[in-house]
This record gives sequence, structure tokens and C-alpha cells, in this order.
Amino acid sequence: MTTLNFTKMHGLGNDFIVINALNQPVTWTADNIKTWSDRHTGIGFDQLLLIEASDNERCDFKYRIFNADGGEVEQCGNGARCFAKYVTEHGLTDKTSVMVETMRGIIVLNILDDGRITVDMGKPHFAPEEIPFVPKNKADQEAKVHMLVVGMETIPVSLVNMGNPHAVMLVEDVKTAPVKILGEAIEKHPQFPQRVNVGFGQVLSPSEINLRVFERGVGETQACGAGACAAVVAGIRHGLLTDTVLVHLPGGDLTIHWKEGESVLMTGPAAEVYSGTLTY
Amino acid sequence: MTTLNFTKMHGLGNDFIVINALNQPVTWTADNIKTWSDRHTGIGFDQLLLIEASDNERCDFKYRIFNADGGEVEQCGNGARCFAKYVTEHGLTDKTSVMVETMRGIIVLNILDDGRITVDMGKPHFAPEEIPFVPKNKADQEAKVHMLVVGMETIPVSLVNMGNPHAVMLVEDVKTAPVKILGEAIEKHPQFPQRVNVGFGQVLSPSEINLRVFERGVGETQACGAGACAAVVAGIRHGLLTDTVLVHLPGGDLTIHWKEGESVLMTGPAAEVYSGTLTY
Repeated sequence: MTTLNFTKMHGLGNDFIVINALNQPVTWTADNIKTWSDRHTGIGFDQLLLIEASDNERCDFKYRIFNADGGEVEQCGNGARCFAKYVTEHGLTDKTSVMVETMRGIIVLNILDDGRITVDMGKPHFAPEEIPFVPKNKADQEAKVHMLVVGMETIPVSLVNMGNPHAVMLVEDVKTAPVKILGEAIEKHPQFPQRVNVGFGQVLSPSEINLRVFERGVGETQACGAGACAAVVAGIRHGLLTDTVLVHLPGGDLTIHWKEGESVLMTGPAAEVYSGTLTY
Repeated sequence: MTTLNFTKMHGLGNDFIVINALNQPVTWTADNIKTWSDRHTGIGFDQLLLIEASDNERCDFKYRIFNADGGEVEQCGNGARCFAKYVTEHGLTDKTSVMVETMRGIIVLNILDDGRITVDMGKPHFAPEEIPFVPKNKADQEAKVHMLVVGMETIPVSLVNMGNPHAVMLVEDVKTAPVKILGEAIEKHPQFPQRVNVGFGQVLSPSEINLRVFERGVGETQACGAGACAAVVAGIRHGLLTDTVLVHLPGGDLTIHWKEGESVLMTGPAAEVYSGTLTY
């Protein structure tokens, strides 16, 4: 019998268990994670976040992410905020800027005075082969806006890769946008060989948008951090938005900051729900 | 700030937090329960089970049940098994037969040697006014099987009240039964003024059935204890089943025992998942 201490947290409703492997031995199988992630017979969570010591002397911690199916994955902005809040509030560090070793390299997490956390989400990429996106012709290859044919409609979308592929479109009103129908159609559109996340953005002012995101393989979610970054980056490139934008998602608000050539910075909240102990 | 210790448990996937009010002060509002029951931003559970001292000297405990919306409710067979397992395994009693004061009266919970728990689910009722069911005519009033007209079909159903109303029908194969379509149609059929839970039973032998249940106001669930009781009682009354029947539900197995004129006894498992501490 092994005992495992964990802390349940969430970032805008995207929920996690955080496990501190610095003060307890941690061993598990992918099947353990599947069992724990079940929302009725287990703990219930979207992802498991693991805090380990880093071998890199520049880093304060090593941060690993496991999906509910047990597989290790690269990136989750909402999870990174929870990670930062955990190491600060549980006294694992007194720094307000934490360097973390992850699967995709070193990331920096900044804890603000108001308790929100800023995460460096990396640089966006736009070239069709970086999305990936298969252009119809040379004009489509070089366009900033791509005209997708979906059924009887032609829909202008902007493409941004934020570590995963995003297609962003403008809508008059996110409340009435056909997120499910168009999301499903565009996600599986043949011009996206690895499928695509689909954002529906409504510009309220140059520094404020409403956004709904249909996530690849999942459906509409409450707060897709990478989707918020992609939408703001697309809006800035088209001259519709300034470099700092408040994004209203169904699950809550994120602030996205970006300047051409730089990384995208995402700022938002994280919340601790309870601490738990599991025996297995 | 209040600290609350709880234990997460489930009975065939129907999940609960159990709160021991014997060793900690417990105060909350309905809004607290709503917040905690959220599966992404809270703990996540179907119901909250509260253990209190009973004023009735015949009883070992008082057992109260709160739905995820904060309202107090009467009965839940899966929850009663978790309650019994908790008080036994956490050393609150060394009895294997526990008398419990509930909103609907005293119930007896028996803990078997194999860890399963038997719950007295009360006596079934059959009269149309006890379901409640509005018969079409005198023959329908007195029938053991009621012919429901649903669209172009006429469907024979047996009616059982197990504290809540159930309509049970026989199917050739639960896998292919149109549970959603017929469940929705029968749940809202005008002959059921308080709507109805709908069971789809497949007889495998006189002592074994497969069962799927469309729960009133919820849809299909993994393991409806009262639905299993209703289906077995109906089968026994029609001479199809013996007095002890193994019921295979999507979430797992229950054993139901009934003799005419007596209470229905439901036997099944309960599992502890983890213990947690919440601050609010």
C-alpha cells in the first residue's frame, strides 16, 4: 500500500492534481492515473502536475504534466499557473519569478502581487508548414487570412501555432456563434493534416475581446489558454488589437500580452480547492 | 476560515463525500454545497452524506443526504452502502448491523463478511395512485401490466414505486434497447403526473438480469439502486424471477432480494477513494 498526498487546484475551471515529489516517493503506472482521473470513481481531474527537483542548476523545479490517459504531455498554460501558485503558497520557494524545467525547455513563471500568475507561452508561429496547414495555392500559401470552404460557406481564418495549431475567426457575437457546428467542421477540415483548435473571437475594443474555443479532440472548453494567446496574436497582427488584451472566456478572464517577435505572456488566476490523501 | 475533513467514496460510480460531524463542527450553506459539488472547480460529487449523532436511542447514527444543489433529500441506496462502509472502516462502530435514523425513518444497514453492504430499501407499492399513474380506464386501473401508447407503439410496462416512481419494460437485449429515445418519451408520458424512472430489463435466467435505467430528470445512469429493486420486484410479480436476483448494471452488480409483502433488500459494494481537507 502506497500513500500519496495531492492538492486539487484549478485555473479557470481547467482542473489538476498537483503532486509534490520533493517530500514523498512517487511511483505510479499510466493505469493508476487513468483510475484517479475518473470523475465518479476516482479523484477527477484534467491533468496531473508533478513537481520534481531539476538537474539543471538554473532551474528551481522540474515540472511534468500527465494527461488523464496517463501519457506525458508538453504544455498547459492553466496548469503552469497552478504549479506556480502551489510552489509559492506551500513554501517551496520564496521567489516571485520561478524558473522551471519542462519537456519543451525552460519556462519562467511570475507571481504578481495580486496573486495572479504570468506564464511565458512561447513564440507564435504562422507559416503554413508550422501550423501545419496545406495551402490550396501560392496565394493561399502567402496569405495572412486563409479562406476556408466549409459546406456552402467560405470562412476567413487566421492561423497561429502556439505549440498546437489554432484557426481563429472573427464573429459578431460569441453568444450566438455556431461554435459546435463550425468547430467540428473546421477541426476536421482536410487542409489541417493534424486537425486544429478553433477560436471564435468578438472584438469589444482594441484591448478587450470575448472568446470561445472549440478544442481539437475535446469540443468547446471553458478556458483554453493557448486559444486566448492565438486569438490575441491574430488580432494584433491584423491591427485590430493593442499589445495587451483582456480576454473574456466562459470560465473567466485572461490577460494576454504580445509584441511582434517576442513570446506571448498569459496572466490569470489559479485556485487551490482542497488537499487529499490517497492510498493505493 | 473553516476546515472541513471529508472522505470521497462511491457505490458503483454513484459518488459521494462523507462528512463526519461527530468529530468536527460542521456548518455550511446550500451555496457551499453547490460550490463543492462542481466537478471542475470544486471537489465533485453526486451527493453529500452527513454523519451525525441520533437523538433516538435505538439508533447508532443519524444519516442525512444533500443533493449537489444543496437541498436535503430522503433516500439513496448507493449512498447508504457508502455510509455503512465508512462508519465500519473508520471505527465509529464495531457492529455489523447498524441502525440509522434518516429523514424517511429508521433503516438497517448490514455489513457482510465480503465487505458488501445490504440496505433495506423499504416496501414496494403498486397501486396507480401510489406510483402516481393516471389509468386510461377501469381495466388499466386494475391491470398488472399497463399498455403505454408512445408515438406509433404500444409498450407494456410494470409500475413500481420504490420511494420514487418506476416503469419497467422487458427488452430482448439491453445493449440495443432504445434507452434514450423511449426513456425520454416515457419519463414525460402524460399518464405519469410526477414523471417516472424507466427501466429496461433483459432476463438472462430466473436469478440474473441485465438492466439499464433512464433516471427521471437525469438521463441514463450507471447504477440506479432503486431501479434495480423495481425491475426485480416487477419480474418476481410476473413469475419471471426467483426471490434473489443478480442485476448487472452498466456500473457493476447488485443483488436484490424480495418476498411479497416484505421490504426489498439490496446488496452491493462501496469503495473509499481518498480523504481530503477543505478550507473555506
